[in-house]
Amino acid sequence: MSNLERLREVLREQEVNVALLSHFGRVAWVSGYAAFIEKGADPFAGGPPMAVLSADDSALVAASGVPANRLQRMLTYAGYEYQQPIDPSANWRQAILEALEQMGASAAAIGFDADSTPAYLLDSARAQFPRAQFRDIGPAVDSLRVSKTVAELAYLRAACALCDVGQQTARTVAKPGATEIGVYSAVHAALEEAAKARVPLGADVVSGERTLDMGGDATGRALRVGDLLMADIHPRHPNGYWGDSCATFVVGGPPSPEQHQAQQVLWEALQRGRDLLKPGIKASQVDAIVRGSLNAHGYDYPHHSGHGLGTTHFERPFIMPWNNELLAEDMVVALEPGIYQAGIGGIRLEWAFRVTPTGGEPLTRFSLSIE
Amino acid sequence: MSNLERLREVLREQEVNVALLSHFGRVAWVSGYAAFIEKGADPFAGGPPMAVLSADDSALVAASGVPANRLQRMLTYAGYEYQQPIDPSANWRQAILEALEQMGASAAAIGFDADSTPAYLLDSARAQFPRAQFRDIGPAVDSLRVSKTVAELAYLRAACALCDVGQQTARTVAKPGATEIGVYSAVHAALEEAAKARVPLGADVVSGERTLDMGGDATGRALRVGDLLMADIHPRHPNGYWGDSCATFVVGGPPSPEQHQAQQVLWEALQRGRDLLKPGIKASQVDAIVRGSLNAHGYDYPHHSGHGLGTTHFERPFIMPWNNELLAEDMVVALEPGIYQAGIGGIRLEWAFRVTPTGGEPLTRFSLSIE
Repeated sequence: MSNLERLREVLREQEVNVALLSHFGRVAWVSGYAAFIEKGADPFAGGPPMAVLSADDSALVAASGVPANRLQRMLTYAGYEYQQPIDPSANWRQAILEALEQMGASAAAIGFDADSTPAYLLDSARAQFPRAQFRDIGPAVDSLRVSKTVAELAYLRAACALCDVGQQTARTVAKPGATEIGVYSAVHAALEEAAKARVPLGADVVSGERTLDMGGDATGRALRVGDLLMADIHPRHPNGYWGDSCATFVVGGPPSPEQHQAQQVLWEALQRGRDLLKPGIKASQVDAIVRGSLNAHGYDYPHHSGHGLGTTHFERPFIMPWNNELLAEDMVVALEPGIYQAGIGGIRLEWAFRVTPTGGEPLTRFSLSIE
Repeated sequence: MSNLERLREVLREQEVNVALLSHFGRVAWVSGYAAFIEKGADPFAGGPPMAVLSADDSALVAASGVPANRLQRMLTYAGYEYQQPIDPSANWRQAILEALEQMGASAAAIGFDADSTPAYLLDSARAQFPRAQFRDIGPAVDSLRVSKTVAELAYLRAACALCDVGQQTARTVAKPGATEIGVYSAVHAALEEAAKARVPLGADVVSGERTLDMGGDATGRALRVGDLLMADIHPRHPNGYWGDSCATFVVGGPPSPEQHQAQQVLWEALQRGRDLLKPGIKASQVDAIVRGSLNAHGYDYPHHSGHGLGTTHFERPFIMPWNNELLAEDMVVALEPGIYQAGIGGIRLEWAFRVTPTGGEPLTRFSLSIE
């Protein structure tokens, strides 16, 4: 069953007839439309790409036709015109409202994602459909997003394969004298060469003392012999799905005995967490086993133990102490224990896994060695 | 006078007491806060970074504290927590509403930018301040953004200097056998090396027949001897301001006589447009002189002749046939005539200029040669 079909079941249960989704992750999840996100709001579009669908049979993405060659458009409107003045946002709104009208919105329950839908679209919809009820369906969609379909697993494997490329590149280029930003840019270039396309990229690339900050954007800091280099690389594949990964290693020399031991403790924690990534296990149990594995050696980390991956790079299930959500087969979870301690530095390891009856199947394979 | 002070004058004229701005360009314009935009909506934040200010004396940016080292935060809230469940979006809303309350919003006129403010923030504000009036001030802010302050001109010069770096790099790496995406990534890396930081980047990088599409994202297409390579590079400097630039040249060989002539016609059009970038000239006159200069040779282009630059990469003044807006000193305008014709290919040249009494002062200096 496709994600669109899965969503329609929920809409019918909730007696929602038509729905609007604005968040890029939800749009990608339901439609496969991976919006261009790297420049902020598109000045040519009048509004964000939107998924507009009915509980029965209609579904489309509303997106501006400019630049046309970037969009797999289904519903277009005039977002760009140079020969006469236009109002892109009015055109965007009108296109969406007309689509809703055709889907029978006038006396229906209209679902929308309240955290992302711009106020001026919702106000216009309320004015145009005064008899309609409006319901926030964002959380319901996010619940559906937790478990992955077969198609989504293939997308996530491809995204995680990009992580392998990026991590291999980081390890190759992070030599003494290179800068954090140089390592970052080389990783980005390698991902884009592998994907043959632009790749949105989140990344912590920090070195030396900065590893104690747990992360951060790359700077011009030059790597010195003996520095730790932490590379947390989370790219979005052109298919719309995000991978996630982290390795930490010593630049241009051997690790100290303490660093070596810390890496072993983290590796063991990761393996113990992996073994527990089975259907029916609570997220909190996974957190407890990973965190507890470090606690036993006197370490801890002031963050989650992991999180889900999908059309956003941080999503349910959150592997946190309070979260009693049950894992299910084919969820995809990244685990990322870390040690951040003066005298050692900051070290974090992260691999992504598919939840299976025999424990986590690794989707990333890159080296986690500290050397 | 700072942009904040300029905005306050307008708010007082409009009898707006407090204001919210959501669009990243407006937030950057009023506060200098250059939001991280390259990954889409931040899953750790609960909502977009917001500028919250009063017409009198208070102003702040509401932004999540995670990752702390990326934010120059002024008002923070719990957007991330792992030891107990939290609702980041509720915390984000509450922080903003409390700030508004402290600024005296309860019986005031509240300005907001309707094209960007999420519905759930506005609905909450309406519920909390039932006696307040809500007014869309987005267009008023955008009007202020057209002319640049001395500080903004320095930011735009730095952004345009990045364009020079990017264009030089494109020309160096675009050799036969290189791919479009390889050129793109090398440009991006050079910009980031120059800025010593991540640089959000918009870019058309197209080659060969693809230049007739006028633009598009880079692909894995390999460059062949004699291909045209069009590089339209518009980076955001870490200071929050965007540059813009375009060059087109022949890869690994001389241009054809027709290509050579087309470049000369475009160069002449650009110079004629530049000469007209003076206070009191209508945008439409600049469009007419640039477009007419090509028309005289039998060419035209199905797009604008140029546009303003600032905290967005496409903004007023739009150099379009219908736009009778008057130029003023210190506006910053990019001009970008193009020729797209079978047998020649697509060629576009773009430089950015400051409007001065003696015509446009170039802010970009890179080579526009077709060879």
